[in-house]
Amino acid sequence: MHGIKALFFDVFGTLVDWRTSIARETQGLLAPRGITIDGLAFADAWRAQYQPSMDAVRSGRLPFSKLDVLHRRNLDAILPQFGLADLDLATRDALNLAWHRLDAWPDVASGLARLRADFRLAPCSNGNVSLMADLARRNAFPWDAIVGAEFARDYKPKPVVYLSAAEAFDCAAGEAMMVAAHTSDLVAAAALGLRTAFVARPDEFGGGRGEARAGTPVDFEVSSIGELAERLCVRQQR
Amino acid sequence: MHGIKALFFDVFGTLVDWRTSIARETQGLLAPRGITIDGLAFADAWRAQYQPSMDAVRSGRLPFSKLDVLHRRNLDAILPQFGLADLDLATRDALNLAWHRLDAWPDVASGLARLRADFRLAPCSNGNVSLMADLARRNAFPWDAIVGAEFARDYKPKPVVYLSAAEAFDCAAGEAMMVAAHTSDLVAAAALGLRTAFVARPDEFGGGRGEARAGTPVDFEVSSIGELAERLCVRQQR
Repeated sequence: MHGIKALFFDVFGTLVDWRTSIARETQGLLAPRGITIDGLAFADAWRAQYQPSMDAVRSGRLPFSKLDVLHRRNLDAILPQFGLADLDLATRDALNLAWHRLDAWPDVASGLARLRADFRLAPCSNGNVSLMADLARRNAFPWDAIVGAEFARDYKPKPVVYLSAAEAFDCAAGEAMMVAAHTSDLVAAAALGLRTAFVARPDEFGGGRGEARAGTPVDFEVSSIGELAERLCVRQQR
Repeated sequence: MHGIKALFFDVFGTLVDWRTSIARETQGLLAPRGITIDGLAFADAWRAQYQPSMDAVRSGRLPFSKLDVLHRRNLDAILPQFGLADLDLATRDALNLAWHRLDAWPDVASGLARLRADFRLAPCSNGNVSLMADLARRNAFPWDAIVGAEFARDYKPKPVVYLSAAEAFDCAAGEAMMVAAHTSDLVAAAALGLRTAFVARPDEFGGGRGEARAGTPVDFEVSSIGELAERLCVRQQR
């Protein structure tokens, strides 16, 4: 047997389609205010600020700030590119909550429901607790707990994020598996001894602009959470 | 309207009947080994070590250690009182997991299900994440996340435990309510600006040996989680 007790999931890109969701939510919020934007370009620009904004925390230049706070600053940074330098604060705050209303890829809810029978499940995301909780309610993610950046008070790929998740579930590193659509996440987890599963999301950044294959050796490589359940669950194998 | 967004729950005593559960679980584990104990006396002795053991963390003498670790040390401390000074390590470890198999008071699951329609719900307990997750699976507690001691890395009634819970749910203190069967927990929460609800568990420590009435002014005083839902939920009031 594989000896895995807990599965930890990356969320943005791996479980939810942040790009078309942000495009839809931001267009939907701005249209009634008479503002038309290219929603996908807006989503891409906002997401492009994501990794750089976390570096300030990872390096210790900025005390831990949850992702909602970073998203809000990143929004301020990109609004001028879309001719929205004068957008009012209330609308900015409303836009920021678009990240709490992302839709899952279609295979996720049923796949997680199957995995839950055999494993403890938790997001190990850079998203904060309230953001994860809102996505869970919206998409029926059956989490046992929410671990990840806000729990660790640092951002992936810093080791404490993965290790505090495993510790919270009483797992040795090898009893936990990180599930992600991004090679970098899995490289960091594997370096600490966690097992790894790569889920292909080849369209994450638009058609053909996502990782179709893992760029590092992994324990499992699948095209959906349902396929991961088929591979991992004893009950499915009988 | 009351303006409450999130409800935080004490767990031991407030939601689960730790005393009769620990009595049953420990007797059940020891009987096949030919050991007979007074299960309720054993539960009481173990629980009596609970507050003192957390003081070492609260005072800073001991780095944060999760409750499973403290429970395990406390078990070692009480075993000689029951003639079990020579109990083997594997049985001690098995006994320690009795705390992961506590049963809820009968009103809890249905009450939480009703509250979930209108509020974010989370345990704010001194129990660790895996312990809370196991109790949630066993008793169908529909948590949005698990906050509390392991999230805050300190023990109630230290302010950081309540404040980090409110912060995780994007709540000002007054937008969060602490629900507990213990006056001391509610006094600490109220001092920080949280709203408070007292749930009477008059038999927590055995017949008539629990708090029947709140010993401090509270926002709501109820006899069950179902009654709290009736009082708080808009949908119930219509």
